[in-house]
Amino acid sequence: MAQENTTVQRADGRATNELRPITITRGWSKNAEGSALIEFGNTRVLCTASFTEGVPRWLKGEGKGWVTAEYAMLPRATNTRSSRESVKGKIGGRTHEISRLIGRSLRAVIDTKALGENTVVLDCDVLQADGGTRTASITGAYVALSEAIQWAKSQGILRAKAQPLTGSVSAISVGIIDGVPMLDLPYVEDVRAETDMNVVVTGDGKFVEVQGTAEGAPFDRDELNALLDLALEGTAELAAIQRQVLGES
Amino acid sequence: MAQENTTVQRADGRATNELRPITITRGWSKNAEGSALIEFGNTRVLCTASFTEGVPRWLKGEGKGWVTAEYAMLPRATNTRSSRESVKGKIGGRTHEISRLIGRSLRAVIDTKALGENTVVLDCDVLQADGGTRTASITGAYVALSEAIQWAKSQGILRAKAQPLTGSVSAISVGIIDGVPMLDLPYVEDVRAETDMNVVVTGDGKFVEVQGTAEGAPFDRDELNALLDLALEGTAELAAIQRQVLGES
Amino acid sequence: MAQENTTVQRADGRATNELRPITITRGWSKNAEGSALIEFGNTRVLCTASFTEGVPRWLKGEGKGWVTAEYAMLPRATNTRSSRESVKGKIGGRTHEISRLIGRSLRAVIDTKALGENTVVLDCDVLQADGGTRTASITGAYVALSEAIQWAKSQGILRAKAQPLTGSVSAISVGIIDGVPMLDLPYVEDVRAETDMNVVVTGDGKFVEVQGTAEGAPFDRDELNALLDLALEGTAELAAIQRQVLGES
Amino acid sequence: MAQENTTVQRADGRATNELRPITITRGWSKNAEGSALIEFGNTRVLCTASFTEGVPRWLKGEGKGWVTAEYAMLPRATNTRSSRESVKGKIGGRTHEISRLIGRSLRAVIDTKALGENTVVLDCDVLQADGGTRTASITGAYVALSEAIQWAKSQGILRAKAQPLTGSVSAISVGIIDGVPMLDLPYVEDVRAETDMNVVVTGDGKFVEVQGTAEGAPFDRDELNALLDLALEGTAELAAIQRQVLGES
Amino acid sequence: MAQENTTVQRADGRATNELRPITITRGWSKNAEGSALIEFGNTRVLCTASFTEGVPRWLKGEGKGWVTAEYAMLPRATNTRSSRESVKGKIGGRTHEISRLIGRSLRAVIDTKALGENTVVLDCDVLQADGGTRTASITGAYVALSEAIQWAKSQGILRAKAQPLTGSVSAISVGIIDGVPMLDLPYVEDVRAETDMNVVVTGDGKFVEVQGTAEGAPFDRDELNALLDLALEGTAELAAIQRQVLGES
Amino acid sequence: MAQENTTVQRADGRATNELRPITITRGWSKNAEGSALIEFGNTRVLCTASFTEGVPRWLKGEGKGWVTAEYAMLPRATNTRSSRESVKGKIGGRTHEISRLIGRSLRAVIDTKALGENTVVLDCDVLQADGGTRTASITGAYVALSEAIQWAKSQGILRAKAQPLTGSVSAISVGIIDGVPMLDLPYVEDVRAETDMNVVVTGDGKFVEVQGTAEGAPFDRDELNALLDLALEGTAELAAIQRQVLGES
Repeated sequence: MAQENTTVQRADGRATNELRPITITRGWSKNAEGSALIEFGNTRVLCTASFTEGVPRWLKGEGKGWVTAEYAMLPRATNTRSSRESVKGKIGGRTHEISRLIGRSLRAVIDTKALGENTVVLDCDVLQADGGTRTASITGAYVALSEAIQWAKSQGILRAKAQPLTGSVSAISVGIIDGVPMLDLPYVEDVRAETDMNVVVTGDGKFVEVQGTAEGAPFDRDELNALLDLALEGTAELAAIQRQVLGES
Repeated sequence: MAQENTTVQRADGRATNELRPITITRGWSKNAEGSALIEFGNTRVLCTASFTEGVPRWLKGEGKGWVTAEYAMLPRATNTRSSRESVKGKIGGRTHEISRLIGRSLRAVIDTKALGENTVVLDCDVLQADGGTRTASITGAYVALSEAIQWAKSQGILRAKAQPLTGSVSAISVGIIDGVPMLDLPYVEDVRAETDMNVVVTGDGKFVEVQGTAEGAPFDRDELNALLDLALEGTAELAAIQRQVLGES
Repeated sequence: MAQENTTVQRADGRATNELRPITITRGWSKNAEGSALIEFGNTRVLCTASFTEGVPRWLKGEGKGWVTAEYAMLPRATNTRSSRESVKGKIGGRTHEISRLIGRSLRAVIDTKALGENTVVLDCDVLQADGGTRTASITGAYVALSEAIQWAKSQGILRAKAQPLTGSVSAISVGIIDGVPMLDLPYVEDVRAETDMNVVVTGDGKFVEVQGTAEGAPFDRDELNALLDLALEGTAELAAIQRQVLGES
Repeated sequence: MAQENTTVQRADGRATNELRPITITRGWSKNAEGSALIEFGNTRVLCTASFTEGVPRWLKGEGKGWVTAEYAMLPRATNTRSSRESVKGKIGGRTHEISRLIGRSLRAVIDTKALGENTVVLDCDVLQADGGTRTASITGAYVALSEAIQWAKSQGILRAKAQPLTGSVSAISVGIIDGVPMLDLPYVEDVRAETDMNVVVTGDGKFVEVQGTAEGAPFDRDELNALLDLALEGTAELAAIQRQVLGES
Repeated sequence: MAQENTTVQRADGRATNELRPITITRGWSKNAEGSALIEFGNTRVLCTASFTEGVPRWLKGEGKGWVTAEYAMLPRATNTRSSRESVKGKIGGRTHEISRLIGRSLRAVIDTKALGENTVVLDCDVLQADGGTRTASITGAYVALSEAIQWAKSQGILRAKAQPLTGSVSAISVGIIDGVPMLDLPYVEDVRAETDMNVVVTGDGKFVEVQGTAEGAPFDRDELNALLDLALEGTAELAAIQRQVLGES
Repeated sequence: MAQENTTVQRADGRATNELRPITITRGWSKNAEGSALIEFGNTRVLCTASFTEGVPRWLKGEGKGWVTAEYAMLPRATNTRSSRESVKGKIGGRTHEISRLIGRSLRAVIDTKALGENTVVLDCDVLQADGGTRTASITGAYVALSEAIQWAKSQGILRAKAQPLTGSVSAISVGIIDGVPMLDLPYVEDVRAETDMNVVVTGDGKFVEVQGTAEGAPFDRDELNALLDLALEGTAELAAIQRQVLGES
């Protein structure tokens, strides 16, 4: 476990290895096969899972399913309004990048054979943004995906014994601020971070994705290790919350 | 007052002249200058008002403000998922049409001179759709707009005595189903309606917009009048709820 | 019948309940299955009907036909040139809205079963604009549609006794200017109107669409009624002209 | 002069060196500063010239004017309906190519210094297509441009003695069909042509643009010369018609 | 043969009827079925030919093949960087025009029956631009196309005796500068040319495309003839180089 | 130093910790201020640096420069042709993601104050792809950027003593194939990798970016460490090659 740095005062009074308050509301949407409203502090993301029979054309006949994701922000999720991507007529690089990350992260815990020729689309729409929207999206999308798979079993679309999920997955941001590694950065910390890392981890503590970026000075191996320690600690907590919300603990 | 048709049984047990349960949660967004989460039964729309100083270039120097609106649906707000307009790279006709309607409706109660050279953008994002999303949007956007104007006064951007709002505005759908005029149609009724009308009304009962469409057989003058009676009744109730939510009653 | 307001002087000398000179030239296009060049005063719209066998994919096998419409303005139809929507790469909200209105209006008089699995696309291209382009479009599109159906019968694509048209349809604009309700507004009146209404009416005097908008002050029930009276009077005249042009009177 | 080939029978009975009936209606548009509806047989193009003071940003302060052109076809100008480029969201290669050709052709007879810092946009919209739409566009656009320049003089925007036009310009198509060079091809001949050439010529018989394409077998020098002879003959006739229409002969 | 104008000094010391140094590197790309890096002086274009079995949907079942081309410039091929068309979201008119020209030119030497139901896409990407990029593209694309056809024979996709190529094709630019006709213009000459012509010629000296444009003063018949003489001389040399590179001489 | 795994046979005979042959050709483009053609085995990327005075509007007046990057692939860089993004009208997520990565990586070694109000755009166009295109792009872009800065000094745009570069940067891919960590994956290895990581490292061995993705099974801390060891070894070699090419060693 990463040791708490006791001399640092965070804006919201948290310890350096402490998550913000995490809330996951299952079944928030009446229309989707699976859904979760997830909150990391003031960050709020609505995650829905749309389960449909059949797969995209290029995958037909292979006996495998498909999981994909789309991420977006409401124009006034942020402090100042940004233009809608639909109005601009194109999707920005950041949106593309995060959608792809979410999709890869969830596919990492899917056995596509066990899913059969079915498709799940995960939509992660940020209703309010305060840092960590991509990690909240991944963590919430997992809950929505689990719900949708339970739904498919309840409908007889998947057999009761099918195990399309090979484990759980969650994600957290970590960063170095004024030389101190910290867990779960809100917006005010995120913009000041010298190094910023998003880590996606399975329920049994293995890495699915590690994305570290030097925003200021390049970082060395020790800093990298300190950040990974924090991230493993944070995602272990998130995995426990996911199990509890899904009634698995 | 429109007389209740006692022989008709609606799916949700309502009288023909009865609104669905209406909930308006003010200040739902921490980031926007004004916001409201509005619910007409299962229809849920997040309305935010973004107040910024200055006006678009074409309006500069005229001493007038500007109010505009954008409407959108989350892809899984509906029963089956629809493609994102940002991904398709263009906005559909329906989205355009509703955005324009919301903008016109709110501008109808704005004194642009009193607003000064300031801009308010109203974003109405449908989180869950069950009929009446455009009327819920107008009704909720009014609350968000009021909040944003109060905020501007509290910040000294508008003088305390400025009266940019000339009144309130709300909207409701009405329609004829199996020959019976009904108020506030959920999705299941909306798709069956022979005639469908959206009516936007000021707090003192005058029309801002009347949009009636024969989906099946054309309608006659009597039917038109019966629908208008219902709409005036419904919007009077909505206006009362708005006053209560805004602490004006 | 709406009473003429004798004290008001309109710019072009018309009575308040008087249409502009209406001209409909059938068969203007040699290539289309049906066509009409329609003029409401200086407003000129070329309406063509393209009849093709088959229906869009989503309608196949239901034994029903499809009618749709597209509206557009030439860049210099107006007083000052506007950019081409093809060059901008997207269609504006106004264009979308009017295209949808024309399509709905024509479908209101179509029996899709009697049309069989055939498609008619109505193109309404404004060559010169002076107010009322959407109402002229609907009125002219009906003539083009009738021609196209006659053509289909002459070709044996539709049986001689098929009745895909359940009636005729026409449309007119009405508005309140300086407190006076007036019929068929040219551009100079349109921009000054406090209330603006477009009314689509069948040949037997029933409403297909009523779209009233308060551009200035909201309007009351009496004003609404006065406008509807004028609109019914105007569309009755248009219906008579349509019958004459089509050789049905 | 090219010699008429007497043994060839054209579908419409014309001689091989004979133009289709040419009609130019000046001032067809009430809104544009210059306009002409031009007909080459069944091909009909509405050409408007929009004269505005000022030039694009990149040309400011150089004391020169700018002339540009946009060409488009109505969706049902052709025998079978084509999709609107505005709906597709992009302009096709053919449209681009022809717009550029028209612009270059008209600029060839413009003295941009004499035009002053003014802009003329030429819009050529094909209302009905039967071959030769680009050549009719150039020929008609010249008339609209002349009108617009006269208008600018009448308004005092250009001095009465300014000579922004250095000459006139017209264009015609020629082609080889079954080995026979022919003038002014309608659609039925155009699709069968082995070689297709569009030639743009000034009023004094010099070349502005020569665009010859082997659609079937490559062509030799003699064939090229025969086509150029025909084209010079045809454009001389068009120049005479232009002078007459503009009251210059 | 065009006579060399001995009194004119070109910037690079060439005679007026002299090509720049021409280099063609076959097989530059390891991935494409055919490829050539072609250099006309400092102009460098990478031409690849992608051979695939099958044809576009609209051509299926006719026993014919299809050849098409796409041209593009790298953003910094030119002296100052231009925006990427992919970033702008649309292709410019010039790009469209040149792509179409290349496609037509290559199809002029293809027997589509002999090609069978196969498709060749020619990509011409300008890596460095110094005038004549379209003519270099055509000349290089022919070499890539020949290679791809040889490849298809070596793979047994085409029979060894199939003759899909009916001849060779190359292209060169010519122009008039300070009244003097010149061959193969680099950028500095191109921008000064009064008349600019691109000529596409088969290996046996017939015209496939002649595109002459008056950039300054219109040109007369003698000037046109002088330019065509130069072009035929230049393309004869290019054809010889092509034969040599392809091992056919 | 990572220990070579002696039992593994790579397709091209390399040791597991061995780079492919690396070639960097400086000054490949005559038009750009800096350029390099970089080859990692069969992967070939043309990197150009466009140096222009001035900065984007949002950065004006802050005394800082700007460095940005755009990545793209030629359509036939790959084994099978892909559609051009310019033709599709939008940029794919992968392209966006890599462009952003290159930009961030180069900005990590730029002192924007020392660069002054100047902009460098790095274009990385993949001419031939065989795995590692993004890491080759970063490594080559650094060389082009260095050249462009030398050019700016030679032109007096930057003072001779200005040090806008705070160090060098290069990048390499690493991955786990059949359980064995390997350096610099060509395409055939890349598609088989269970874990794939791209690592961007400064000349003095610090991390700028670490992007590890589990393509198959999630990876543990030991595997992560083995991959980082390999990457540090590979980038140290690349840094040496960069120094040599730039004449700095």
